[in-house]
Amino acid sequence: MNAHPVITVLAGNRPLVGMEELQREAEVRVTDDAGLPEALAGADILYLWDYFADGVRRAWPAADSLRWIHVPAAGVDKLMFPELVSSEVVLTNARGVFDRPMAEHVLGSMFHFAKNFGLASAQQRQRQWRHYATGDLAGASVLVAGTGSIGRCTARLLAAVGLRVDGTGRTARGGDADFGTIHASADFAAVAGAYDYVVLAAPLTPDTRGMLSREVLTAMKPTAVLINVGRGALADEAALEDALRGGALAGAALDVFETEPLPESSGLWELENVLVTPHLSGDSQNQLPALARQFADNLAAFKAGRPLANVVDKQLGFVVS
Amino acid sequence: MNAHPVITVLAGNRPLVGMEELQREAEVRVTDDAGLPEALAGADILYLWDYFADGVRRAWPAADSLRWIHVPAAGVDKLMFPELVSSEVVLTNARGVFDRPMAEHVLGSMFHFAKNFGLASAQQRQRQWRHYATGDLAGASVLVAGTGSIGRCTARLLAAVGLRVDGTGRTARGGDADFGTIHASADFAAVAGAYDYVVLAAPLTPDTRGMLSREVLTAMKPTAVLINVGRGALADEAALEDALRGGALAGAALDVFETEPLPESSGLWELENVLVTPHLSGDSQNQLPALARQFADNLAAFKAGRPLANVVDKQLGFVVS
Repeated sequence: MNAHPVITVLAGNRPLVGMEELQREAEVRVTDDAGLPEALAGADILYLWDYFADGVRRAWPAADSLRWIHVPAAGVDKLMFPELVSSEVVLTNARGVFDRPMAEHVLGSMFHFAKNFGLASAQQRQRQWRHYATGDLAGASVLVAGTGSIGRCTARLLAAVGLRVDGTGRTARGGDADFGTIHASADFAAVAGAYDYVVLAAPLTPDTRGMLSREVLTAMKPTAVLINVGRGALADEAALEDALRGGALAGAALDVFETEPLPESSGLWELENVLVTPHLSGDSQNQLPALARQFADNLAAFKAGRPLANVVDKQLGFVVS
Repeated sequence: MNAHPVITVLAGNRPLVGMEELQREAEVRVTDDAGLPEALAGADILYLWDYFADGVRRAWPAADSLRWIHVPAAGVDKLMFPELVSSEVVLTNARGVFDRPMAEHVLGSMFHFAKNFGLASAQQRQRQWRHYATGDLAGASVLVAGTGSIGRCTARLLAAVGLRVDGTGRTARGGDADFGTIHASADFAAVAGAYDYVVLAAPLTPDTRGMLSREVLTAMKPTAVLINVGRGALADEAALEDALRGGALAGAALDVFETEPLPESSGLWELENVLVTPHLSGDSQNQLPALARQFADNLAAFKAGRPLANVVDKQLGFVVS
């Protein structure tokens, strides 16, 4: 129970939403990255509105009474530093809010390649009317790496339009409600070659880092398309660029990168078989109010001493269903 | 009954598929546009493999024993000339084969605009990492003009991904299996303003020509996106270009045009809120064998004196369900 907790809000470039309501429920300190250590001292809760921020570990020594960190994002890999993992501080995320936009981003990206819209646009800029080949998604096969809420929402949407959807997860299993077969992540390289599309929707953990290895890329069909909405470091980005340049992979829709913003010097920008988007696959109109509401609901639980929703397993690095 | 009919095949740029099988069933004369009059004399059947061809009316006086024309395409508007319409010649089309590719083209086009992939690609060419707004298709509303097999397949696919789908058809009706409400085509201008997306999937007939009029365009939401997979002349193309330039319409995916190929001088090429594709929304890999099979099945019926499938109502200009 804590009737009027102190919340430190790390603001970012996004407009702050829901702050008036919060101020009725708590003492709210809005800060930026530089002011974080000072604002953390004495705070009960850290609300990482700017979830791209890197400064939490740096400010950690100042967190003398912190009990809860909420990240209005899906991935929490930046917070998996030892001091936080080993602490008693509870970490929650915005599980669910990004599922549908990301699933739509994945499906839209698949259409971009199946329907060859990149070539259509290139020809349009040249005022060129020339026939080219297109394909259907119906009946195509897709492997979704990640069976969390994002992977599941994606699987359901893709199945709804007629794709055959399998997954990879921590343990192999059949009889799943959303996936055909779930392969063990350890078998990713062994099974990836059977699919027309491969989607990375896994959290970044020590187990998943580099999972799209040179070996997996070599195993994939040369006609296959990769979609990464998880984290850039799930892939060996240099090997991925080689595969895309060398024809080992037909195309890729990349929303996340090893370094973000993607450096101007990256060779990925210039590849015509790549669709680069600036880490926004989870975005949607009217999403900020949903994120604010989710935090407000959890804050009510915190104040009442009830269990919080969407608690991250800090050993695993994600919320366990 | 006709044991060994004479079939004139108008070849085009597409590879001829299924000809060996046909030659076992009939006398086959392959010709081009110039040779059509000579090849039509004495022919029982005209197989318009090159369905973009214009020469049938010109060659019509030579058709002295023609009984059946098959068009391996959906739209038959080019064949609705008085001599053919008033004749006893039966006209069939490839109803069904294009439904799924076109439905996918429509959905893919909607994602292209909802997810702002045009801007993504433009920024990618500039190596520019900059956030922009995206939206969801879930819960958006769409009006599909045309309740034939293409419109229905499209409606089913869009509903499967969570869009609210209404239609316009010859007569208003509710309780339809594929559409929410079907409005009367005559009310198109009155209802178009309520939708986030408008899809033209109607046949081109005297009733539908110019149905996307300046009046309808003015009624539409300025945030709405148009997708035309029917015929260019369903729209007032000059009014459409004005709407797209002036902000009365957010975007358009146009696969068909008043004049095809789209003239190099057309202003539509240069509009960044337009996706131009060269009349291929119905295309798909492995489609030519399906088209050949469909004709072979109808040929078997013709030879046996059974009724043909997919007979066009020449008064209406399309196949009636």
